[in-house]
Amino acid sequence: MNLGILGGGQLGRMIALAGYPLGARATVLEPGTNSSAGQVCAHLPGEFDDLQALYRLAQASDVVTFEFENVPVEAARWLAERVPVYPPPGALEVSQERLAEKQFFQRLGIPTPPFAAIETEADFRAAVAEIGLPAVLKTRRFGYDGKGQAVIRTPQDADAAWQKLGGRPLILEGFVPFDRELSLVAVRGRDGQIVTYPLIENVHQDGILHRSVAPAPDLGEELSERAAEFAARVLTELNYVGVLTIEWFQEGARLLANEMAPRVHNSGHWTIEGALTSQFENHVRAVCGLPLGRADAVGCSVMYNFIGSVPPTEQVLANPDAHLHLYGKGPRPGRKVGHVTLRAASAAELQEKLPEWDAQFARGPQ
Amino acid sequence: MNLGILGGGQLGRMIALAGYPLGARATVLEPGTNSSAGQVCAHLPGEFDDLQALYRLAQASDVVTFEFENVPVEAARWLAERVPVYPPPGALEVSQERLAEKQFFQRLGIPTPPFAAIETEADFRAAVAEIGLPAVLKTRRFGYDGKGQAVIRTPQDADAAWQKLGGRPLILEGFVPFDRELSLVAVRGRDGQIVTYPLIENVHQDGILHRSVAPAPDLGEELSERAAEFAARVLTELNYVGVLTIEWFQEGARLLANEMAPRVHNSGHWTIEGALTSQFENHVRAVCGLPLGRADAVGCSVMYNFIGSVPPTEQVLANPDAHLHLYGKGPRPGRKVGHVTLRAASAAELQEKLPEWDAQFARGPQ
Repeated sequence: MNLGILGGGQLGRMIALAGYPLGARATVLEPGTNSSAGQVCAHLPGEFDDLQALYRLAQASDVVTFEFENVPVEAARWLAERVPVYPPPGALEVSQERLAEKQFFQRLGIPTPPFAAIETEADFRAAVAEIGLPAVLKTRRFGYDGKGQAVIRTPQDADAAWQKLGGRPLILEGFVPFDRELSLVAVRGRDGQIVTYPLIENVHQDGILHRSVAPAPDLGEELSERAAEFAARVLTELNYVGVLTIEWFQEGARLLANEMAPRVHNSGHWTIEGALTSQFENHVRAVCGLPLGRADAVGCSVMYNFIGSVPPTEQVLANPDAHLHLYGKGPRPGRKVGHVTLRAASAAELQEKLPEWDAQFARGPQ
Repeated sequence: MNLGILGGGQLGRMIALAGYPLGARATVLEPGTNSSAGQVCAHLPGEFDDLQALYRLAQASDVVTFEFENVPVEAARWLAERVPVYPPPGALEVSQERLAEKQFFQRLGIPTPPFAAIETEADFRAAVAEIGLPAVLKTRRFGYDGKGQAVIRTPQDADAAWQKLGGRPLILEGFVPFDRELSLVAVRGRDGQIVTYPLIENVHQDGILHRSVAPAPDLGEELSERAAEFAARVLTELNYVGVLTIEWFQEGARLLANEMAPRVHNSGHWTIEGALTSQFENHVRAVCGLPLGRADAVGCSVMYNFIGSVPPTEQVLANPDAHLHLYGKGPRPGRKVGHVTLRAASAAELQEKLPEWDAQFARGPQ
């Protein structure tokens, strides 16, 4: 089975590595001549809108997937006329536009923070008045890791936010006084089978995922079931195939959908060591039309991102619980260059070890 | 870190895959243009005694290891003058010669089955008389998966065995009425740190490993400790670096060393899913001079080899507990082409599920 991947970053790299034991050999399409994924599988250099490159990828692949959600939808559709593309390009389209995404959640009865569509400054002023402050003004497209966003706490912030982002299609989102951020990674097979990983607790710093704990501590069963049920609605509605991630705000007993990513997700990296089947393997299984593996957690895990640079390998592995994942990328401020996962046998053991692990690995962006 | 590997089979493949997350990129030296490992990393075609190829491997590598024990010792020594080679070529030498290996165990106070060195037919007849029947006549070199062996149960068998194998340096080993076969996978770091996986119970068919269960059921703590202590003696005496496997016969409360392999081992494949750190990752860590990871089992695992051919992937993965590992090799009778590992939360759960799993996967050589 030849697996084409649009995008050659670390997500593609970990998909490619998960594919080999299943007999799936990956080719990534990625501009440039060096890439994180291209170090571990075939690399086809090319832009995502280069029809010749897309044609070559289709020729080399039995099925094509993608590892980031900013792939041009037209490219995914063009490919889908030539070779099966999973997840479906329609899912890509919905997730690329924050307004469409929120409206999609709303239509499925999935609660979201309050939001308003913003085209003009008048829309903006009216929405600020209605939703109230604090709020977040966001571009509708191509935001990630906190880029293309402005937090508005005061009327002065509102002016600055409009100055920064105005003139494009925007969305204003009410700032939810959430207790914490959660995410849910779920997978749907070609036959409609769905498996759902446990809810994950995420901490962001400067808009970049910093630490994930899974299963999220102190979860009621009700909350987990509701999140899984919401995810199932999304997967089924989109006729989805592959891994999908939904980010949530938890506010007391409420879950509010923040956004979704039609791909494997940074907050699911712990599944490599901490779940019966990793998100990467289950994504490969799904897109290749194979039965899915169990998604149960094995013990409790914490994952820390290495942002900007990685500490010396010897230092990381001096902790015998550390599972290190390097992405083969050079250091650069704000760049995700690796992660480490540590696993404990139980939630109680994790809480006991967490302060020590935080002290070693919670470095924040470098 | 660039890691050279002598040999491009499935063991090299799984070492290479384990290396990527640690930042180790592998190049395998292997005759021919296609190889199991060469599908997942760089492949340098060449014979193991081709000095030009060895020189190119040394140039491409920061450290060199090997994935099978029949690499010419001279090649390993030649390389070791140019680049660090782990495990040390001396360990390779001892393990390539059954007589030297048995004498080495004996010297370290590690019990073995009775054995005798055979050069001439007179040696052979005298040894049969002394050791008694049944016994096994073996070539001293280059035996694997039961090749180069003859079981002697009757005087007629003795004649046939001499006919088949006589004229080469041989060893006669008393046939031990063992209860079961066990193996121990242990790792030693460059700094002398040793970690030991739990004892594994192995079942062979036609001389080829068929099924491994780990931790081996019904083990006394004493037996486990003794095996670990014996392994530590071997590792320390050889100034070993990397994974070493010792195969044992268990006879009541006795452990008799059968043979050792200076490499990762088929009976340790379950460690990918069933241990905190896989044998492949710990081998990479050891040879690269990194701290070792924990070797504790997580639950209980069983591994089945696929010999000759692999059942359809859909069929294997229809069992949601199945972790499939394909080696990218074509079918051929007697050839190891893949394996599957299944994990249970406890020994009791494993015993409960084993009949069903045996029924699905215990196919025997095809």
